[in-house]
Amino acid sequence: MPVVYRTQRRVEFFDTDMAGIVHFSRFFIYMEQAEQEFLRSLGLSVSLVWEGQSIGFPRVSAKCDYISTVTFEDVMDIDVSIEKIGTKSITYQFQFSKNGKPVATGTTVACCSRKNADRKMEGIPIPASYKAKLEALLTSL
Amino acid sequence: MPVVYRTQRRVEFFDTDMAGIVHFSRFFIYMEQAEQEFLRSLGLSVSLVWEGQSIGFPRVSAKCDYISTVTFEDVMDIDVSIEKIGTKSITYQFQFSKNGKPVATGTTVACCSRKNADRKMEGIPIPASYKAKLEALLTSL
Amino acid sequence: MPVVYRTQRRVEFFDTDMAGIVHFSRFFIYMEQAEQEFLRSLGLSVSLVWEGQSIGFPRVSAKCDYISTVTFEDVMDIDVSIEKIGTKSITYQFQFSKNGKPVATGTTVACCSRKNADRKMEGIPIPASYKAKLEALLTSL
Amino acid sequence: MPVVYRTQRRVEFFDTDMAGIVHFSRFFIYMEQAEQEFLRSLGLSVSLVWEGQSIGFPRVSAKCDYISTVTFEDVMDIDVSIEKIGTKSITYQFQFSKNGKPVATGTTVACCSRKNADRKMEGIPIPASYKAKLEALLTSL
Repeated sequence: MPVVYRTQRRVEFFDTDMAGIVHFSRFFIYMEQAEQEFLRSLGLSVSLVWEGQSIGFPRVSAKCDYISTVTFEDVMDIDVSIEKIGTKSITYQFQFSKNGKPVATGTTVACCSRKNADRKMEGIPIPASYKAKLEALLTSL
Repeated sequence: MPVVYRTQRRVEFFDTDMAGIVHFSRFFIYMEQAEQEFLRSLGLSVSLVWEGQSIGFPRVSAKCDYISTVTFEDVMDIDVSIEKIGTKSITYQFQFSKNGKPVATGTTVACCSRKNADRKMEGIPIPASYKAKLEALLTSL
Repeated sequence: MPVVYRTQRRVEFFDTDMAGIVHFSRFFIYMEQAEQEFLRSLGLSVSLVWEGQSIGFPRVSAKCDYISTVTFEDVMDIDVSIEKIGTKSITYQFQFSKNGKPVATGTTVACCSRKNADRKMEGIPIPASYKAKLEALLTSL
Repeated sequence: MPVVYRTQRRVEFFDTDMAGIVHFSRFFIYMEQAEQEFLRSLGLSVSLVWEGQSIGFPRVSAKCDYISTVTFEDVMDIDVSIEKIGTKSITYQFQFSKNGKPVATGTTVACCSRKNADRKMEGIPIPASYKAKLEALLTSL
C-alpha cells in the first residue's frame, strides 16, 4: 500500500494532558488534518460543493493503535495511504512516527454523503470525477 | 458481556461541526468520560496514587464505529461493558444510543502504566487490589 | 447583579494539560455549557428556530481571568449572571469557584444573529418574546 | 506597538461548529499556538527547563473580540505584539485578519510560574536571561 501523502505535525501545548503526553483523542484530529491536506493537494476536500451538489465525508469508522508516546514540541511524520476506494467510502491508513520510530497507526473510513431536505446525512456513491482523481493518483504511484 | 455502568450525555454546541453533527473525534472524549465515571463509581480512576505509586491508564487502542448521527441537544445513553481484564490492560466496550436506536459503538484498551524517572510511561501489571474491585463487580452481575 | 443560574462542573481528564491543570481555553467551553444550561432552563437556546426564523447567538466578545488553578476530578461551582440585555446582545458573567474559593471569572457577549442567504451571520435585534423571558426572570429575582 | 511575529493559520474542519463558522473558543488555541511559535523562534517556550528550573507560563487573563466570521479552509494572518513585559508577566496582543480584513483581536497575559513541591503553581519573576531575549527583540524593532 503506497504512501500517497506525507506531512508533519508538531505537538502543541493544548494537545497534551496531565500525563504529560498527547491525549489519545488528538490523533483523530491529526488524521483528519492529514486527510484534508492530502485531499487539498488534489483539489478535493472533505466538505465541498462538487458538480453543484453539497457533499461531505463523515467518518463511519475510526481506529488508532498507540505504540509510543509523544509530547509537547515533538515533531511527527505522518504518512497517508489509501487502503481501499469503495463505491461510497474511502479507507485511509495513517502511520505516525518520530525520528523514524513508530508512534501510532490509524485507520479511518470516510463515507461520501449529502444532506437531505430533513438535514439527515445520506450515503451516496462517490462522484465518478472525484473518484477518478484518487484512482489516477494511485495508478501513478 | 454485561453492562457494568450506564450514563447519559447531552450533546454540547462545542461538540458539533459545520456538518451540523457531532464531530467523530468527540466520541472518544465521551468514552473517556464514561470510563472515568464508571471507575469513580468504584472508587477507582484513570489517574491516581494507588498504594503509594502514581499510576495511569493511557489508551493503547481506541476504535469507534458510527451508525447514525446525533446533533446539538440530543441526549445519548451510554452503556459501558468490560470485554476483558488482562494482566496489564482493560478492554472496554461502549454502546451509544438515542431513544433506543444505536448511534455508535466503541472500544478502548487502557494499559496500566507508571511514570519512570525519565518520565517515560511504562506498562505494569494492574495492582491486584485494583483488579479485584473490577473482578468483584463482574462476578456480582 | 443577581445570579440567574447555578450549575456544577467536574474537571475531566481531557480538560487538563501537561502542567497538570485545566487548560485555560477550557473555561470558555465551560461558560458556553453554563450559558446553554441556563437558557435551556427557560426553554431558550443559543441555536434554535424562534418564531419560524433560525437564529443563533455567536459570541462577539469573551474574556476570562484566572485566579487559582483546578485539576482533574475537581468540582467547580459556576454562577451565571446577566450583566446587560441590549437590543442585539446579552452580556453574561460567570463566577467559577471550588469549595467557596474563587477560581476564575468570565464574561461573554452573545449577539443575536441570523444566517443570510449567502450564509453570512447578520446581527439582528433579539426577538421581543425571547427577550421578555429573560427580563421576566430578572424582574422576579 | 510593533508586530514581533507574523504567522498564518488555516481553519481546520474540527475548528468549525454547527453554525458553519470557527467556534469562538478556538481563537484561544490559535493565540497559544502563535505565542509558542513566536517564543520558539527566539529559543524560548511556554514550558521549559530554564537554568535548571522547570518553569511555565500559564495564562492569568485571556480575551478575544470577534469582528467577522471565518470558516473551513480560510487562511488567517496572525500578528503577534507584546504590549507589556512586567516583572512576572507578559501581555501579548494578537490581530487576526483574512485578506487584510480584520477577523478578531485578542489579548493574553502569561505569568511566569514554577511548580512547588505540593504541585501548586507559584508566580515568580521572569528569569533575567529569558526577559533579556524578549527585550532585545523589542529594542531591535
